[in-house]
Amino acid sequence: MDLSRYDLDRLAVATVASHTALQILRGAKRYGFKTIAVAGRREAAEFYRQFPFIDEVWEADFSNFRKAAEKLVETNAVLIPHGSYVEYVGWRQALEAPVPTLGCRELLSWEADQHKKMELLRLAGIPTPRTYTSPEEVDGPVIVKLFGAKGGRGYFLARDREELAKRIAAVKEPHIIQEYVFGVPAYYHYFASPVYGRVEVFGADIRYESNVDGRTFGWVEPTFVVVGNLPVVLRESLLPTIWRYGAQFAKAVKEAVGCEMAGPYCLESIIKDDMSISVFEFSGRIVAGTNIYMGYGSPYSVLYFERPIDMGERIAHEIREAAKQGKLDKLFT
Amino acid sequence: MDLSRYDLDRLAVATVASHTALQILRGAKRYGFKTIAVAGRREAAEFYRQFPFIDEVWEADFSNFRKAAEKLVETNAVLIPHGSYVEYVGWRQALEAPVPTLGCRELLSWEADQHKKMELLRLAGIPTPRTYTSPEEVDGPVIVKLFGAKGGRGYFLARDREELAKRIAAVKEPHIIQEYVFGVPAYYHYFASPVYGRVEVFGADIRYESNVDGRTFGWVEPTFVVVGNLPVVLRESLLPTIWRYGAQFAKAVKEAVGCEMAGPYCLESIIKDDMSISVFEFSGRIVAGTNIYMGYGSPYSVLYFERPIDMGERIAHEIREAAKQGKLDKLFT
Amino acid sequence: MDLSRYDLDRLAVATVASHTALQILRGAKRYGFKTIAVAGRREAAEFYRQFPFIDEVWEADFSNFRKAAEKLVETNAVLIPHGSYVEYVGWRQALEAPVPTLGCRELLSWEADQHKKMELLRLAGIPTPRTYTSPEEVDGPVIVKLFGAKGGRGYFLARDREELAKRIAAVKEPHIIQEYVFGVPAYYHYFASPVYGRVEVFGADIRYESNVDGRTFGWVEPTFVVVGNLPVVLRESLLPTIWRYGAQFAKAVKEAVGCEMAGPYCLESIIKDDMSISVFEFSGRIVAGTNIYMGYGSPYSVLYFERPIDMGERIAHEIREAAKQGKLDKLFT
Repeated sequence: MDLSRYDLDRLAVATVASHTALQILRGAKRYGFKTIAVAGRREAAEFYRQFPFIDEVWEADFSNFRKAAEKLVETNAVLIPHGSYVEYVGWRQALEAPVPTLGCRELLSWEADQHKKMELLRLAGIPTPRTYTSPEEVDGPVIVKLFGAKGGRGYFLARDREELAKRIAAVKEPHIIQEYVFGVPAYYHYFASPVYGRVEVFGADIRYESNVDGRTFGWVEPTFVVVGNLPVVLRESLLPTIWRYGAQFAKAVKEAVGCEMAGPYCLESIIKDDMSISVFEFSGRIVAGTNIYMGYGSPYSVLYFERPIDMGERIAHEIREAAKQGKLDKLFT
Repeated sequence: MDLSRYDLDRLAVATVASHTALQILRGAKRYGFKTIAVAGRREAAEFYRQFPFIDEVWEADFSNFRKAAEKLVETNAVLIPHGSYVEYVGWRQALEAPVPTLGCRELLSWEADQHKKMELLRLAGIPTPRTYTSPEEVDGPVIVKLFGAKGGRGYFLARDREELAKRIAAVKEPHIIQEYVFGVPAYYHYFASPVYGRVEVFGADIRYESNVDGRTFGWVEPTFVVVGNLPVVLRESLLPTIWRYGAQFAKAVKEAVGCEMAGPYCLESIIKDDMSISVFEFSGRIVAGTNIYMGYGSPYSVLYFERPIDMGERIAHEIREAAKQGKLDKLFT
Repeated sequence: MDLSRYDLDRLAVATVASHTALQILRGAKRYGFKTIAVAGRREAAEFYRQFPFIDEVWEADFSNFRKAAEKLVETNAVLIPHGSYVEYVGWRQALEAPVPTLGCRELLSWEADQHKKMELLRLAGIPTPRTYTSPEEVDGPVIVKLFGAKGGRGYFLARDREELAKRIAAVKEPHIIQEYVFGVPAYYHYFASPVYGRVEVFGADIRYESNVDGRTFGWVEPTFVVVGNLPVVLRESLLPTIWRYGAQFAKAVKEAVGCEMAGPYCLESIIKDDMSISVFEFSGRIVAGTNIYMGYGSPYSVLYFERPIDMGERIAHEIREAAKQGKLDKLFT
């Protein structure tokens, strides 16, 4: 995206008013940027308006995002995309929105297809669960994910081939059948920095899902709707591997998708009881799990910086340094 | 409570030596107040005496709290009430203790009756679980709470009408029968600020309960004794609703109970897998869940203040500002 | 260990590159020490080399640790031991390594024997689970731990005498049969300070174990491999007891083992639903659970210090003060 007509001394940072907007805009304000929240609903707009670190709260029609995007350009603003942005405006609009957008936008089309998603992970040399094309191949528990699944909705488990065969018959939408890996979930947060030429590992979270993480005593079927996130630190002996997977992923994006990773992303995994990792999903941009750092900063951010910073501050830091060094075109597409 | 004879330049902050006393007194000391811990047991007194930010540790007889209260007044001290204070001295003594006490004291009589508690939530327009008056009305799992239940003791579950009928027969004390809502627990922390004229959402916790959160493999009956708290961040798209419920609650207290909310309080909920919230309880003062912020501050405190602060510091900040502005009578009753 | 030939103005702090090395070395660097990570594997060395707060990353052969130890002495370095160090070089080498090592080294031989471990806890007057010598004595669920169990591997549960009798027959190694206590796990972190003449309680964590903390729905047998740690704060009314157990433990080490506790250690417990604590294990040095404080500091560190500090900083602070006061011989053996 063309940044040549932007006034780099008075950049604004914008994002959609949800998901991780609070940390993004607070971080941006701390680094001296003007801040804009773009809200889709009145209630959200009202909520975000109470915070003094947000300079402007806009209300926009997400079914026609081009209009808001053009206004952002007029306002000298860059956009930080996140999961709710992609969900609200849709990945096709996000792919083409005429506003400078952080990170590798082309990843969006890979993420829209669960099979391409897994392919990219495999290209990166990252271990993934087995994928099945039909119930006949299945010899253990599986998880079925619809392509449009959001925040854990549209997933179901089947304990064996028979249960899968029964339930899959009702599924008309595109989906993927994956081996259900036993172990514990762990979501790794990374930051790809074109400014420093490195991939940073920032920390990890566990998702808090309703109702599976509640007290159901097996009385109802488990559901997997993400309602929050918990902080976790991982065994330090796992970190070299986790860091390497993050770096391999960034490299694979460059080679296979053809654009450079810039900014936050996430690998989503199960850690098995032999300490091996199976990555079943990725997010090409900031995940809500990084909200665990808001206010505190992340545990591993102190490995790279003097004081703990959160992901919103990390993004703002990168933008400011890139602007100073004339490298903004490496961050925004 | 009459503060007119207090010397506002050398206020002391006192609390009972348990629950959240460490953060309350540490926060008070950071803001320049003299600090007093009132202990009921020798072992507690000894523990609190080791910390230099506590100026005085008193030992008191909680069965006659009036005496300690009068001494607090002579010492120019205000009292920060918490759950252990109410438990140790009893809500009737707490209601009448002749010492300026933070917040809306009259709420105590509403909290002593589980039915009035739920009524207040409904008056506030906050969704709550259904309440049943007899087993015949019940068509699913329920939770039964005795009125005097403390820290999770005195609760039990019944999976259906039959089990309830059997177990309720043995219950002689006042109790409430509530729908058992499936989802995940989440406890929201608020601060009502007369100084700034706003309700702040501070963060959330999950209770850590023995033995239900342990590894029991269904080998013993679940029990719900709170032994600690875990930090959690919630989906940002839930925050506008959570904030609104907090504000509605403060408004309902003013209208129905007739006094102004001031200081910390908590709404205690289940988040269902349709992302709706069901509030099954409230606390009209600081909850132990805010201990997760001690030393760090809370994630959302940075939305209102420059740096993260914990609830103890938040209280001290409010007292200091109210003292400056001549508004202490809005905080203490 | 003889520190008389050390140049105290340019001490180096060394540790094995794993476990808690990041916080230890970052803390040491903040307090002005030179830092050395000793790696056993190339991948680990490469990972640790990226961090500027680590001055030197060595590669060493852990099967002959004496060589590295001697080189550490030549480099004016003290060693901070941790669980991975003990695991990699073995407790016998650790016991005799000719390099000043933080804490009570002799504890290692007690920790190598599960029965002596429990004996030391009982000597300290700390409640522990019952121990059985044969299945006949057993009247409820038990946990069986092999002596060499590491990070949760080599444990198994048996629900009753019959299951135990069946499974124990296959166990040829030394082991201990313990009562399986119902409740929730909690791990308490302490710091014994010869400089300040006190035991500090620093905080607590919960272990995150694969697969038992995952979503297995009872479809596979539970396993207990520690892959990470979660932060938890405990009811403040438990703290006096937790603190007392920590102090009693340090006293028992002095009396029974004959050396002074110095630096971090941990008591590992179940909290029952009557709020009593049963300690089933201890660690005589820093545990990986303290990684939850990295970058943030611990919640209770602010009870003793002005700002939150993590365990790595706490260690470095103690070394610096001890060096100033000529008390280093109280820290290192």
